[in-house]
Amino acid sequence: MAYTLAELARLTATELVGDGSFEVTELASLSRATSKSLSFLSNDARRAELKGSEAGAVVVSRAVSDEIKRGLISDDPYRTYAELSVIFDGKGIPFAQGVHPTAVIDETAVIADGVSIGPGAVIGADVVIGAGSVIGPNVTIYPKTQIGLDCLVGASTVIGYDGFGFAKSSDGWVKIRQLGGVVIGDDVEIGAGCTIDRGALDDTVIEKGVKLDNQVHIAHGCQIGARTAMAGYVALAGGTVIGRDVTVGGMTGFTGHLSVCDKVHIGANALVTQSITVPGAYLGGAGGVMKAEDWRKNAVRFRQLDAMARRIQVLEKQLDMKSKDS
Amino acid sequence: MAYTLAELARLTATELVGDGSFEVTELASLSRATSKSLSFLSNDARRAELKGSEAGAVVVSRAVSDEIKRGLISDDPYRTYAELSVIFDGKGIPFAQGVHPTAVIDETAVIADGVSIGPGAVIGADVVIGAGSVIGPNVTIYPKTQIGLDCLVGASTVIGYDGFGFAKSSDGWVKIRQLGGVVIGDDVEIGAGCTIDRGALDDTVIEKGVKLDNQVHIAHGCQIGARTAMAGYVALAGGTVIGRDVTVGGMTGFTGHLSVCDKVHIGANALVTQSITVPGAYLGGAGGVMKAEDWRKNAVRFRQLDAMARRIQVLEKQLDMKSKDS
Amino acid sequence: MAYTLAELARLTATELVGDGSFEVTELASLSRATSKSLSFLSNDARRAELKGSEAGAVVVSRAVSDEIKRGLISDDPYRTYAELSVIFDGKGIPFAQGVHPTAVIDETAVIADGVSIGPGAVIGADVVIGAGSVIGPNVTIYPKTQIGLDCLVGASTVIGYDGFGFAKSSDGWVKIRQLGGVVIGDDVEIGAGCTIDRGALDDTVIEKGVKLDNQVHIAHGCQIGARTAMAGYVALAGGTVIGRDVTVGGMTGFTGHLSVCDKVHIGANALVTQSITVPGAYLGGAGGVMKAEDWRKNAVRFRQLDAMARRIQVLEKQLDMKSKDS
Repeated sequence: MAYTLAELARLTATELVGDGSFEVTELASLSRATSKSLSFLSNDARRAELKGSEAGAVVVSRAVSDEIKRGLISDDPYRTYAELSVIFDGKGIPFAQGVHPTAVIDETAVIADGVSIGPGAVIGADVVIGAGSVIGPNVTIYPKTQIGLDCLVGASTVIGYDGFGFAKSSDGWVKIRQLGGVVIGDDVEIGAGCTIDRGALDDTVIEKGVKLDNQVHIAHGCQIGARTAMAGYVALAGGTVIGRDVTVGGMTGFTGHLSVCDKVHIGANALVTQSITVPGAYLGGAGGVMKAEDWRKNAVRFRQLDAMARRIQVLEKQLDMKSKDS
Repeated sequence: MAYTLAELARLTATELVGDGSFEVTELASLSRATSKSLSFLSNDARRAELKGSEAGAVVVSRAVSDEIKRGLISDDPYRTYAELSVIFDGKGIPFAQGVHPTAVIDETAVIADGVSIGPGAVIGADVVIGAGSVIGPNVTIYPKTQIGLDCLVGASTVIGYDGFGFAKSSDGWVKIRQLGGVVIGDDVEIGAGCTIDRGALDDTVIEKGVKLDNQVHIAHGCQIGARTAMAGYVALAGGTVIGRDVTVGGMTGFTGHLSVCDKVHIGANALVTQSITVPGAYLGGAGGVMKAEDWRKNAVRFRQLDAMARRIQVLEKQLDMKSKDS
Repeated sequence: MAYTLAELARLTATELVGDGSFEVTELASLSRATSKSLSFLSNDARRAELKGSEAGAVVVSRAVSDEIKRGLISDDPYRTYAELSVIFDGKGIPFAQGVHPTAVIDETAVIADGVSIGPGAVIGADVVIGAGSVIGPNVTIYPKTQIGLDCLVGASTVIGYDGFGFAKSSDGWVKIRQLGGVVIGDDVEIGAGCTIDRGALDDTVIEKGVKLDNQVHIAHGCQIGARTAMAGYVALAGGTVIGRDVTVGGMTGFTGHLSVCDKVHIGANALVTQSITVPGAYLGGAGGVMKAEDWRKNAVRFRQLDAMARRIQVLEKQLDMKSKDS
């Protein structure tokens, strides 16, 4: 697999720098690139890394184009790298095209032409899967799930299992049968080991272009707006409504029955307990790690925070009184 | 599927309001209900929502019964909704009844009559599964696991895998072979994507009526008391002992070898590091999210908390001395 | 299965105390041991537990050897327990030896002799698995994964799935095809329900002797040094580099593109946001749980921490001025 820089400039609609007949055989990061590699610089501020790299050619922004001998100039080198990754990726579908013979598919399921379903996947009654979608091995899709066009689902993911709903009674918990389904739009990617529950009454809805990393959990009746992206272990409790173009860092949770407006960006390892109505960046959690001995001293104060605040108030009053006295 | 209100009043032992021959065809939330829907109001404080709903009939408490034209009066409308969900749920078992032919079951396993085992499930040696239990697709049950009557296990869950136990040696880690099993009582529900490890020496025990949401992790040798419920991603480190009638919010962890008494309720995203011996409600973690710029200012102070507390002490002493001076 | 103490002393290279012909039939914890059990005391400080135990024999350190009638003296009783667990574990491989007929293995995969692959496991193109490795049921291994000798992979784990990489465009997210693989060294243990992603460009690398608990997530391009151990739910974002002999407590996350040096020990439920360059113990998170009413009072102050710190500064200045005045 070798491409000339001129070919790649044409395929990615970028501007050639240097010898167009130069051939590259792989994409590589700057630090590991060789003279046969095409690499990229996605952040101009790190241009110093160009000097140390052995890359045969580099994709850069116009602002940095003087610093390379050979390569491509792009408005957005990172997006160009994404486009190049498709060109250099030999295989689209990791397991066989089409429905693998070991997949178990209910006869009432509607599987479009051109869908790939991996070995050991299990597809329940009345499931609908749109053309171009790829379902990984050992995925389970429970009944009443609809999946759009060109979706990608990682191995071991479970879609459409019962939401976690119980009513208390004097004997313990009474299960609330889950009557809703799951509706997933086009071009959605769901990672490996995720769980997307069916709705209790209303469907769980994931709009087009949503991207979920591995081990994400979406509880019953949640709605996720178009193009929202969530990193690993994000967990939505029941009935959470997330807007469009939202990003959520890994391990962040939502306590349920709250809503988040469009264009909100939430950091990692936070707990969202109230609705967010203003677009922007949000963070939560207690921050990073410290040496254990420092952390112990500080964390014990967390339990005294209210007392500390009250002591400051008392001091302020005392000083104020003294000032009046004098 | 249509039921008259009179039929439903009889089946749920509730009191009819209005025309008993009125037919409903579905359960629905108040906000999405139509004139053919039966809905419910589980919280009297939200009675204003009745006005905006198009529901043909509503389940309410006696205190709100004047505000509906048609419906059912229940001591506990939410529990009645749970009972109605069974009536309106056409299908009990999402995949075929009985043992699916693609399930792989060790010949020494004892599977009661009336157990359903989904496609691709794998059941190891000497496993026992009680009548009425439903094992989801692609579930793996390792040897030495016992499951009671009427249990429900979600897809991709793994029960009875080795606990995480190693001893240090000069060469690295020496694996501690896990010799215990897993014992699960009757009427236990385990969500999708959970991992329940076998005990190192003593069994891991989950008592009757326990409910675990998706992606819960129970380490080796834990014990969970009857009717305890845990939301998604709860993780118990080895040897944790949880009492009866406990509830745990999502993403909360337990550091192991500690115990929690009966009737404790712990919020989401907390870390339990010490035993809890008094029933009641507990919370942990750093609270919700803030605008990123506010969080950065506050979180950096977390690292200075101990210094802040000491500065308050100094101020208090200085002021106290001044007071004595004057 | 019965062993004399003399046999066990010989097999574990420990020193016999008491009657060498005494037979034990099981390993058990001190609290559950019977007169036929061999137990162990791994922490001398808990020697009081010896008195209450009915164990027929106990493994202890030399410092405690006067307090037992019968047993074994070991330099490291916990490591001796690990060795005994192998002796008392009847079965090595929980599912059948060799490749189970329901496993789906690509014809280009290279599976060494003596590898065990559980029912329903799926092995992709060009995968290499070294001798002695055991792959659990329903595991999925995507193409371009190499696994060393004597590795153990728990059920439902997914190795080699696409890393979570997208570039923004005006239409939403453009997927970055993942071109790297996963390289796993010898003697690595990966728990059940884990996800180990393939690299974007460079391989994801897990060195020899690494131990991962259940539900761990390793993102694309991470490197984990030899003998590092991570408890349940640990999550590494893309490009994280972890040194050798590191231990990480459960539920702790790493925000990506940072590095942690050798011999670092990080507690549970923390978020590592910056590189760690000094060996030692680190902690993070907000600490344990409190009664809900106490937590509410304290957690609200977390949002006022910066204001509190500034108020202390003001008080300090005022007092300082007063001191100069007087």
